[in-house]
Amino acid sequence: MDEFELIDRLIEILGDNVRGPHILLGPGDDAALIETPPGSLVVASIDTLVGGVHFPLGAPADLIGFRSLGVSLSDLAAMGADPAYVLIALTLPDGSDRWIERFAHGVAAAASRFGVAIAGGNLARGPLNVGVSVHGHVARGEALTRAGARPNDLVCVSGQLGGAAAALSRADLSSPPALSALLAVSADDPLYPLRRYYLPEPRIELGRTLRGLATAAIDISDGLVADLGHLCAASAVAGEIDLEDVPVVAGVDRQLAATGGDDYELCFTIAPRDRERLPNSVTVVGRIGEGSGVVVRSRGQPLQLSRRGFSHFR
Amino acid sequence: MDEFELIDRLIEILGDNVRGPHILLGPGDDAALIETPPGSLVVASIDTLVGGVHFPLGAPADLIGFRSLGVSLSDLAAMGADPAYVLIALTLPDGSDRWIERFAHGVAAAASRFGVAIAGGNLARGPLNVGVSVHGHVARGEALTRAGARPNDLVCVSGQLGGAAAALSRADLSSPPALSALLAVSADDPLYPLRRYYLPEPRIELGRTLRGLATAAIDISDGLVADLGHLCAASAVAGEIDLEDVPVVAGVDRQLAATGGDDYELCFTIAPRDRERLPNSVTVVGRIGEGSGVVVRSRGQPLQLSRRGFSHFR
Repeated sequence: MDEFELIDRLIEILGDNVRGPHILLGPGDDAALIETPPGSLVVASIDTLVGGVHFPLGAPADLIGFRSLGVSLSDLAAMGADPAYVLIALTLPDGSDRWIERFAHGVAAAASRFGVAIAGGNLARGPLNVGVSVHGHVARGEALTRAGARPNDLVCVSGQLGGAAAALSRADLSSPPALSALLAVSADDPLYPLRRYYLPEPRIELGRTLRGLATAAIDISDGLVADLGHLCAASAVAGEIDLEDVPVVAGVDRQLAATGGDDYELCFTIAPRDRERLPNSVTVVGRIGEGSGVVVRSRGQPLQLSRRGFSHFR
Repeated sequence: MDEFELIDRLIEILGDNVRGPHILLGPGDDAALIETPPGSLVVASIDTLVGGVHFPLGAPADLIGFRSLGVSLSDLAAMGADPAYVLIALTLPDGSDRWIERFAHGVAAAASRFGVAIAGGNLARGPLNVGVSVHGHVARGEALTRAGARPNDLVCVSGQLGGAAAALSRADLSSPPALSALLAVSADDPLYPLRRYYLPEPRIELGRTLRGLATAAIDISDGLVADLGHLCAASAVAGEIDLEDVPVVAGVDRQLAATGGDDYELCFTIAPRDRERLPNSVTVVGRIGEGSGVVVRSRGQPLQLSRRGFSHFR
């Protein structure tokens, strides 16, 4: 298949996922046409997954497709936005039709699961690279940002941390179960870290719940300590984490869980009086103070962490 | 500089270009916040430039930055949209601070010239890859699309073609003049093809003029013959081009001009009665008929072209 036949095949596999309530014109023209609900703002972010850096080059293409959507939609969850549409820029080394088709199946599975339309994309030849531009809507004045945390606020985390970081050291990272089987793996299964790594679940519903409740929010992509650091910097406050309170995926080292990236849970702050409004899936792990930086305490003592989170270009 | 220091430096270089009339929150949070003018739709597209494929790996970084914006904004011009904001996903092999800074200067120059804000981005490590997601606005019902050309419509082209294709065979492709000098090169200068290749000018103002005038439009990225083919397929009509009427950059072979890509001029169709409403920068090069496919004629005879345009994955 040439480039244009491949694009037609991709659109065929995506099926209903190229349509959505706000998409007036989807893939196939020079650009897509999308309407913004009255009173809403557009929330927009872009992310890149590089083959051999953000996933093993031999990883199954459908898992890469699913992961690329999950990772980028997590930014919308952190803003409290409703997902609307994504644009996908796929660069891959050769015309491996089967790879692209399998990638599209993974994208379609994630798009269905997370309620987002594939409004357009681009196909180019080169080293494997998946760029995803995500777009959502949020009522004006209701978006969550990193700025807004105040001294005495509580620091909260959704779900359990460390699963994705634990997957990175597994020998079977490049040979995970099939997508449908992996999606069914439960938290007490030894394969759960692989699910967390390949099939992150952007906390979209929690993001919606946090509108008008959280004072600041960020998604955990670089690691809890690093990302709380970004939130604190944007809010001009200091953060404190009690290591023993960090919710951890079963069997994962607690320090790894506090510093490992790729979990795509939400870290956010709330006023102490709002504590009882928190959903059950959320854990309070620390508090905000005056000053700057993040301190991690274990049994009350400040901890010197060996790894504070992920950064390219160190 | 680490990843976050580099991002701060990029934002510093971009200066006022991270702001725009519709940007409520620019780079630095999980996502940007943008308002859509009442009565307008969002027009959205994504493009990728791969190092060694879409530009020479040794090309100056500022020219790559400028080109990546010009190329992707051309899709907005083809839809008749007003540019609003872009998101840039930059993947590059190592933390070459100077390269990134120079890239940012080129992006800033293009953003100022074309009136678009840099609302966000992503920085990752890997083989050189520039993904640009572009977003514009157009009043509901006024967008141009590839569909809508009708038999007897005239086929029109803006500017002159073939400059970018001619640049590809030049020995000095990797060592062009500095950005400011190249922007000043005029059409009769032997260096003009290099300007056309590195500094494409998306025909945004023409796109605006064509609202309510063109029956269909596309930008010329793959080559006139190939792109008119896409327009005809979307419109379910046939196209005919008179090779002698194709407007050509001085000194460029006419067949190369008709098939070479990367010109980022507009190809569009109008009803014959609207011919006198065309701006001077536009040339009528053929007509639309019933059927499918594109025929190129030279002195009235159908021509067998050796190259019909660019396609990855052949």
